[in-house]
Amino acid sequence: MELKKGLKSMETSRDYEELRERFARIAFLKSTLRLLSWDQETFMPPGGQEHRAGQISTLSALIHSMLVEQRTGELLDHMWDQVRDLGSSSDIHVNVREWRRIHGQAVKLPEELVEELSYAKVVAHGAWVEARAASDFSIFEPHLEKLVALSRKKAIYLGFEENMYDALLDLYEPGEKTANIEAIFAKLVPGLKDILSKARVQSSATRREIQGNFPLESQRVIARLMAARIGYNFTAGRLDTVVHPFSTRIGPGDTRITTRWNEKDFTEAVFGVLHEAGHGLYSQNLAADAFGTPLGESVSLGIHESQSRLWENIVGRSLEFWEYFLPIARGIFPGMLDDVDTNDFVRIINRVKPSFIRVEADEVTYNLHVFLRFQLEKEIINGHLQVGDIPARWNELFEDIFDMKVPDDSQGCLQDVHWSGAAFGYFPTYTLGNIYSAMIFDAAVQDMPGLQEGFRRGEFAPLVEWLKEKIYSQGQRYRSRQLIEHVAGRAPECRTFLDYLGSKYERLYGK
Amino acid sequence: MELKKGLKSMETSRDYEELRERFARIAFLKSTLRLLSWDQETFMPPGGQEHRAGQISTLSALIHSMLVEQRTGELLDHMWDQVRDLGSSSDIHVNVREWRRIHGQAVKLPEELVEELSYAKVVAHGAWVEARAASDFSIFEPHLEKLVALSRKKAIYLGFEENMYDALLDLYEPGEKTANIEAIFAKLVPGLKDILSKARVQSSATRREIQGNFPLESQRVIARLMAARIGYNFTAGRLDTVVHPFSTRIGPGDTRITTRWNEKDFTEAVFGVLHEAGHGLYSQNLAADAFGTPLGESVSLGIHESQSRLWENIVGRSLEFWEYFLPIARGIFPGMLDDVDTNDFVRIINRVKPSFIRVEADEVTYNLHVFLRFQLEKEIINGHLQVGDIPARWNELFEDIFDMKVPDDSQGCLQDVHWSGAAFGYFPTYTLGNIYSAMIFDAAVQDMPGLQEGFRRGEFAPLVEWLKEKIYSQGQRYRSRQLIEHVAGRAPECRTFLDYLGSKYERLYGK
Repeated sequence: MELKKGLKSMETSRDYEELRERFARIAFLKSTLRLLSWDQETFMPPGGQEHRAGQISTLSALIHSMLVEQRTGELLDHMWDQVRDLGSSSDIHVNVREWRRIHGQAVKLPEELVEELSYAKVVAHGAWVEARAASDFSIFEPHLEKLVALSRKKAIYLGFEENMYDALLDLYEPGEKTANIEAIFAKLVPGLKDILSKARVQSSATRREIQGNFPLESQRVIARLMAARIGYNFTAGRLDTVVHPFSTRIGPGDTRITTRWNEKDFTEAVFGVLHEAGHGLYSQNLAADAFGTPLGESVSLGIHESQSRLWENIVGRSLEFWEYFLPIARGIFPGMLDDVDTNDFVRIINRVKPSFIRVEADEVTYNLHVFLRFQLEKEIINGHLQVGDIPARWNELFEDIFDMKVPDDSQGCLQDVHWSGAAFGYFPTYTLGNIYSAMIFDAAVQDMPGLQEGFRRGEFAPLVEWLKEKIYSQGQRYRSRQLIEHVAGRAPECRTFLDYLGSKYERLYGK
Repeated sequence: MELKKGLKSMETSRDYEELRERFARIAFLKSTLRLLSWDQETFMPPGGQEHRAGQISTLSALIHSMLVEQRTGELLDHMWDQVRDLGSSSDIHVNVREWRRIHGQAVKLPEELVEELSYAKVVAHGAWVEARAASDFSIFEPHLEKLVALSRKKAIYLGFEENMYDALLDLYEPGEKTANIEAIFAKLVPGLKDILSKARVQSSATRREIQGNFPLESQRVIARLMAARIGYNFTAGRLDTVVHPFSTRIGPGDTRITTRWNEKDFTEAVFGVLHEAGHGLYSQNLAADAFGTPLGESVSLGIHESQSRLWENIVGRSLEFWEYFLPIARGIFPGMLDDVDTNDFVRIINRVKPSFIRVEADEVTYNLHVFLRFQLEKEIINGHLQVGDIPARWNELFEDIFDMKVPDDSQGCLQDVHWSGAAFGYFPTYTLGNIYSAMIFDAAVQDMPGLQEGFRRGEFAPLVEWLKEKIYSQGQRYRSRQLIEHVAGRAPECRTFLDYLGSKYERLYGK
């Protein structure tokens, strides 16, 4: 009996080691794919576009074929029988559970579709860049047509219960449902419009702009200094210049962030870098020795975004943060910031003003932009909206929400990179990130009441340590909603976020 | 009968397409491996070292496992039967011949060895950097020990007839033999020593140095200008800064070169960039539509080096070249080059002076450095020299050849990156490149007698066009020795190179 049990667990452990080995290989290839993409956005010469498409589609197809190997499926089924009941306190349970999830997804997709989609994305990206520059939707339209058709095919292969959009949403936010997102927006949108109507009037009274001539070299200094100060490690990372900022984790010891610069307004780069460094902190603090297993991976895009928005907005746009950093900024930009005090400065960087471009939006209007895209994507993916009708529908929705007329498609439906990458289902994770960030920070403040006081002295380590324990080190132990429940003690809701915004603007302008 | 023949050729073409497809995948993965290496040398943060080793070894093992697939071997055998007699004028013959060569090599090597070696190389590289900085061989020794053991194992797996070193040499210069290289050096070394004894005295009379303070930004301008002028295409390439310059072809439309800069002497970067741009011209002009087949690949390291040395030395250190570029350099570095005339300048950049460092060596002593490494590597690989005895043996050989005492290992056996990459067998290709470059240029001048005159006017296109036809567009149609015979009308020899050097110094200093 004893012997048999021993043999059984030896077998299990051999199986588990084989699985780890198999997924480690896949993880190294995926991380190589991320380097190909990073290089494409940063340093690749223009002539390399087509070849890069070939590299990416070859590697994607290969990863897919490795993921769906029959032996992997057998090992997973066998292991799952044995660890299913252990629950998420067991590392093996978590890893097998999540491996099964991605294996299960992959086996549903034919390799040709994966290869075709990854090739089409790279080509479409180029067309989108051109279309956006020319504000000419027709350049992008045939590519988008193709990506929509392939994405709908993909959704059908993946399967769904209620809403075809669920199949794609689940790729970015495992377990999340369209109906949940609709429920969130149903409360969030009126709440935001309410805050907007007040804050818009109040903040328009703040006349002064932070405009001038801020040398890029000095901007680089303060951006790097801030990122380092909040804990982003430059010996395990980089900061590069790109057109569309992003962050990427190549692997343990190598997480890269990017930004763009505006010579007229240094705060653009600063908030961009804080945002990406927020992502970077999460990536740099994932368990290195768990690389290749779900316990060494981030939970979802929503949780990732909660980290970037937490540092960019909740910390980075706070009065306490600038009580520490404004004197430093004055030193780095001599004479440029002398006539603005900290209160004014914080009012300026928190100004609320509806605009056409999502990535330039303030904290209040930002999620209204996401709401628009969510509405549109549901229609596109469910086949209720033809690709050719996207520009008109976009403009109609935009006017409904913002009461402003979109001047051209480059400021409308061509503004975002996502669709050129067939990333339908991605946008809602931005809003999840925002509402999660407020819940997470709220929990942190309850645990550490003096937290914000420390920001005045440039002390961010307590918050990072807390996040390490609560989030970074957890890997994929919990799915996002569960993780939020663990951290905040209650299910995801948008009340905390609305309260945060409401009280922020009260503090800034008085009741 | 007709039908049967038709069917047979259809089958052949289906087989050929399958082979093309199989090797295209492998080629995309190999090109991804090159990007991983490029990134490692240019932009990777220090913390990424270990993860990069994992990426590279995973991808290397995968490529190896794809190369050795049984189906590939069967297809190759089947195809070879049918195209063997077509000779190298047939594209299919050439591709199948070379695919068989690399498949044949790969099947001899166990996957574990490939993976172990590629991992060990990445780790050893870090140790070598440290050892060299500290001039402490003991830091590198255990790693080198391992790499030598694995390389000897590799040579045994690959097999050889006369000399174990043949097995490794063949990896860099297909078909080349140790005995051939020995025969070349047997004539080359005395010839070089002869030229050295004269040129050394003469050139030591040239007192003036090109020393000053050359702003790096201006150096970048002239380096890029020269590279572009000789035909290197920056929309399909880049120029970056590294510790150990190299060039790499990611794929069609994406060839990258690198350099280092010396603020005191702008010619260091200029000749470095001309060297790498010479490699780059070859890479950029390989047939893009033949990517993934041997006809779209360079012949060998020796032929590649012939292109870099041709542009760096034969063109780049000529009087005609500087008659065009020195006035431009005077414009870029105002006041810095006014008191040196073109003849003086060319004497200075051609000064002959034995030194400890290969990469800083002049054209005469350079191949003596290579000779030393060739001698040493034969002893190491054949097991006649223990790794621990390398420093002493290096110093002994160096004194034999140069009559100078090596002051420390960083200026001795730790100076080159190659052994940290287990690249035993690589060095002789440098000397082949040098003697080939002279034969190729000699042939070009015979075809185009006014060629060098054109350099005075900045006209390099005729030479590039000629090289395109004779070399770049040929891919691997011929092995290196055959290619040289095709281009120069005679078998490889070192006489042309010695004549070139001899007459160069005669022209510079008179008889």
